[in-house]
Amino acid sequence: MEDPEIASLLEANLKFYEAFSTLDIEAMDHVWEPSDRTRCMHPGWPLITGWQEVRQSWDNIFNNTTMMHFIITEAHPVIEGDIGWVDCIENVTSLVDGRAASFAARSTNIFAKSGDRWLMVHHHASP
Amino acid sequence: MEDPEIASLLEANLKFYEAFSTLDIEAMDHVWEPSDRTRCMHPGWPLITGWQEVRQSWDNIFNNTTMMHFIITEAHPVIEGDIGWVDCIENVTSLVDGRAASFAARSTNIFAKSGDRWLMVHHHASP
Repeated sequence: MEDPEIASLLEANLKFYEAFSTLDIEAMDHVWEPSDRTRCMHPGWPLITGWQEVRQSWDNIFNNTTMMHFIITEAHPVIEGDIGWVDCIENVTSLVDGRAASFAARSTNIFAKSGDRWLMVHHHASP
Repeated sequence: MEDPEIASLLEANLKFYEAFSTLDIEAMDHVWEPSDRTRCMHPGWPLITGWQEVRQSWDNIFNNTTMMHFIITEAHPVIEGDIGWVDCIENVTSLVDGRAASFAARSTNIFAKSGDRWLMVHHHASP
């Protein structure tokens, strides 16, 4: 059986992609740590820092996106104390600003434990 | 004054780029945690996992590189318990396989505390 801590970290990682694929900003609110230390690096974007700006970036993305579908592969979790990180491959099919695209991105996601939940503090995705 | 823990994390981050720019595999030995959980994502390369393979990748890079110069900017450190991470911009000038290049990469580097040292466990660089 999988370690329950590892399973909950992997679940938090999948919840992020679920919020992304349902274009649901309130689900994103539950995924991220609402703190100044959050950092988000969308492929090809400038760095976004702090939850307020990170949230605004998701709002902008969701407003311009018709469809976003993820298949997450090769997810690899590590936990040390109250920090966990997952790297994975995002296999993406999207319809953004009327343009359809299929591509793979590599992602490093860092989570911090808050009570019994893992909250995202750092997202770095690259082509 | 800067927090001494933050200063030592930032120093570990710079030691990594120093080892990279001096093409010094023994310096890399001192930068990385020699464990199976180390993961390394060079821009455009497949994922490399575990210290043995990570070390081999540096050896290969160093053997094909004549010159590598970094200016690190916008380094941003976070510490939580025995884990620290730094994201930064790598402003790179290089001569690899006889080809000169200047480019910027964005990097997420994760370090684990070992005694009084921070050792790299995860490096993700992207264009």
